[in-house]
Amino acid sequence: MSVSEFSGDYVVIHARDNGVQVFGLTRGQDTRFHHTEKLDKGELMIAQFTEHTSAVKIRGKATVYTRYGVVDTEKV
Amino acid sequence: MSVSEFSGDYVVIHARDNGVQVFGLTRGQDTRFHHTEKLDKGELMIAQFTEHTSAVKIRGKATVYTRYGVVDTEKV
Amino acid sequence: MSVSEFSGDYVVIHARDNGVQVFGLTRGQDTRFHHTEKLDKGELMIAQFTEHTSAVKIRGKATVYTRYGVVDTEKV
Amino acid sequence: MSVSEFSGDYVVIHARDNGVQVFGLTRGQDTRFHHTEKLDKGELMIAQFTEHTSAVKIRGKATVYTRYGVVDTEKV
Amino acid sequence: MSVSEFSGDYVVIHARDNGVQVFGLTRGQDTRFHHTEKLDKGELMIAQFTEHTSAVKIRGKATVYTRYGVVDTEKV
Amino acid sequence: MSVSEFSGDYVVIHARDNGVQVFGLTRGQDTRFHHTEKLDKGELMIAQFTEHTSAVKIRGKATVYTRYGVVDTEKV
Amino acid sequence: MSVSEFSGDYVVIHARDNGVQVFGLTRGQDTRFHHTEKLDKGELMIAQFTEHTSAVKIRGKATVYTRYGVVDTEKV
Amino acid sequence: MSVSEFSGDYVVIHARDNGVQVFGLTRGQDTRFHHTEKLDKGELMIAQFTEHTSAVKIRGKATVYTRYGVVDTEKV
Amino acid sequence: MSVSEFSGDYVVIHARDNGVQVFGLTRGQDTRFHHTEKLDKGELMIAQFTEHTSAVKIRGKATVYTRYGVVDTEKV
Amino acid sequence: MSVSEFSGDYVVIHARDNGVQVFGLTRGQDTRFHHTEKLDKGELMIAQFTEHTSAVKIRGKATVYTRYGVVDTEKV
Amino acid sequence: MSVSEFSGDYVVIHARDNGVQVFGLTRGQDTRFHHTEKLDKGELMIAQFTEHTSAVKIRGKATVYTRYGVVDTEKV
Amino acid sequence: MSVSEFSGDYVVIHARDNGVQVFGLTRGQDTRFHHTEKLDKGELMIAQFTEHTSAVKIRGKATVYTRYGVVDTEKV
Repeated sequence: MSVSEFSGDYVVIHARDNGVQVFGLTRGQDTRFHHTEKLDKGELMIAQFTEHTSAVKIRGKATVYTRYGVVDTEKV
Repeated sequence: MSVSEFSGDYVVIHARDNGVQVFGLTRGQDTRFHHTEKLDKGELMIAQFTEHTSAVKIRGKATVYTRYGVVDTEKV
Repeated sequence: MSVSEFSGDYVVIHARDNGVQVFGLTRGQDTRFHHTEKLDKGELMIAQFTEHTSAVKIRGKATVYTRYGVVDTEKV
Repeated sequence: MSVSEFSGDYVVIHARDNGVQVFGLTRGQDTRFHHTEKLDKGELMIAQFTEHTSAVKIRGKATVYTRYGVVDTEKV
Repeated sequence: MSVSEFSGDYVVIHARDNGVQVFGLTRGQDTRFHHTEKLDKGELMIAQFTEHTSAVKIRGKATVYTRYGVVDTEKV
Repeated sequence: MSVSEFSGDYVVIHARDNGVQVFGLTRGQDTRFHHTEKLDKGELMIAQFTEHTSAVKIRGKATVYTRYGVVDTEKV
Repeated sequence: MSVSEFSGDYVVIHARDNGVQVFGLTRGQDTRFHHTEKLDKGELMIAQFTEHTSAVKIRGKATVYTRYGVVDTEKV
Repeated sequence: MSVSEFSGDYVVIHARDNGVQVFGLTRGQDTRFHHTEKLDKGELMIAQFTEHTSAVKIRGKATVYTRYGVVDTEKV
Repeated sequence: MSVSEFSGDYVVIHARDNGVQVFGLTRGQDTRFHHTEKLDKGELMIAQFTEHTSAVKIRGKATVYTRYGVVDTEKV
Repeated sequence: MSVSEFSGDYVVIHARDNGVQVFGLTRGQDTRFHHTEKLDKGELMIAQFTEHTSAVKIRGKATVYTRYGVVDTEKV
Repeated sequence: MSVSEFSGDYVVIHARDNGVQVFGLTRGQDTRFHHTEKLDKGELMIAQFTEHTSAVKIRGKATVYTRYGVVDTEKV
Repeated sequence: MSVSEFSGDYVVIHARDNGVQVFGLTRGQDTRFHHTEKLDKGELMIAQFTEHTSAVKIRGKATVYTRYGVVDTEKV
């Protein structure tokens, strides 16, 4: 396992309601869910891309902080 | 598998309506769909380019955050 | 296959009408089309340069986001 | 163990109430809690991503300082 | 073939009239045309320098986006 | 031991009261305290992340200077 | 042949009259012309330094875009 | 001994009174004092992190210049 | 021959009169002229430092563009 | 001896009175003086960190220029 | 001979009078003159540091462009 | 001898009076003078740190240009 991994980019997910779901999608030929994290109102998750995760999907009312901007999921 | 991959660039896709589709297109001599992710209204997807994906196609009402700007698909 | 490839530069193509065509041109001694992607109005494509693609040609009404500026194909 | 690890990115968690919980989630195929740190009001924790931690979850009233902004967990 | 090539610099050529010609000139001791691409009005080409191309020549009414500025060929 | 370690990032802890405690938490599968430094009012500690320390916890009235901002522990 | 070459610096030459000449001068112990490219009014050339070219000489009415500024050859 | 070490980061300690103490704390599993330097009023010390020092503790009236700000120890 | 050479720094010499002379001076223990290029009024030369050239001397009325500024030789 | 050493960081010490002393402290497990340089009023010393010096101590009336600011030793 | 040398830093010397002298001083244990270049009024010299030159001395009325500023030798 | 050396940092010394002395101090366990250069009024010296020089001392009326500022030796 290489160390550069530990410095990988991350996103910050701030749940603004109960039941926010953060899905990790598998890297590789198959793209499927390998982990689901539930966040309650006010909880914060800081998640890196890893050897096993190349995409993240977020469902529910949350504010997401990324390299390209801050997104409020409920503002559509 | 090399670690630098985990720090690869990503795009952020924010669905502004139900039924937004995110297609992963294969890297390599053949360019074809290898994965389709459906997003409902308000859902967010953060997706990296990977060993298997060198292009992404998005269909439906969404806001897409990239290195070169933010695009609202419905503003044409 | 080397990982740096996954972090390669990309362009964003936003179709402003039906029937936008995105052609991938082969890298190497021969320069010819190896892939054509059709985009309908509002669809978005995010495409990297790859081992097989060193040039991209776009036909139809689109806005293209690149490192050196944003181009509206219909503004000539 | 490689030295670059020591320069890895970190987040700063400032507890604004008693009982703030900082969970370290495991890197790797399984994503589960491997450590829980409790912070009392006013306490500060500065935590790096490591070989064993690729995600952090925070529960309770806290201000979290990250590369992409400062988040007050109670502001939802 | 090395991957860094895929991240090579590129220029953007936007045809403002029919019959714009983009010539690729060979790298190496001989400098001669190895490819000609014709662009019609509104068409866009994004082209990298490659193992085979170290110079590009453009003939016709076009706007060219480069690292050192944007040039309208007809403004002389 | 590699030299890059010596250039690692650090935090600055300025005690604003007697009895400020700086805890070093172990890097690795186990996360536990391996060192506690006590600071009296006005004392300053400048501490790097190391092979043995991947997290720092601070208790007591202090101002902490980090890459992502300056935090006064008593301001909650 | 190394790939970094493909990312080498380049200059942009915009002919503002017929008969602009772009001379490539050889790299190495001998410095002599190895290629002459003629540009007609409005034509554009984008040329990299290569294994064979370490200097470029331009004769005729042109605007030249370089890292250190834009030069109109006729403004003397 | 590697040369990069010589370019390591440093802090500047300016004693504003007699008897300022600068303690070097050992890098490694044990964290203990390995050196104490006393500074008199007006004296200045510029100290790098080294193979042997991963933390510095300062006692007494001083101004300390670091990457994250300037701290006056007596301002509490 | 190494590729990095091709990305070496360069200077731009714009002749503002006939008979401008650009001398390449040899790199190595001996410093002597190895090449003289004559530029007529309006001509432009873009020259890299190379394996054989570590200094350039310019005689005559010219504007010279360099990393540290633009110099008009006749303004003394 | 490695060349990077020659590009190491340095500090500038400007004596504002006679008898300014610049002490070099040894790198390594022992921290002791290995050199003392005396500067008279107006004299300037520019000193790098080296294989043998990891700390510098300055006594007397001087202005010291460092990466983190300029310090007048007599302003306490 | 390594290529990085060709990208080495340089200084620009613009003679503002006849008889400006540019001395190259030898790198190595002995520091002595190994080359003298004379510049007449208006002449410009662009000189890199090399394997053989680690210091340059300039005598006469000149403007010298360097990384740290522009110096007119006659303004004392 | 490695090439990076040639790109090493340098200082610029502008003598504002006759008899300015520039002393090179030896790198290594012994710190002693190994070269003295005398500058007359108006003369300029540009000197790199080298394998043999890790400190420079300047005596006399001069302006010294460094990475951390410009110092007039006579302003004390």
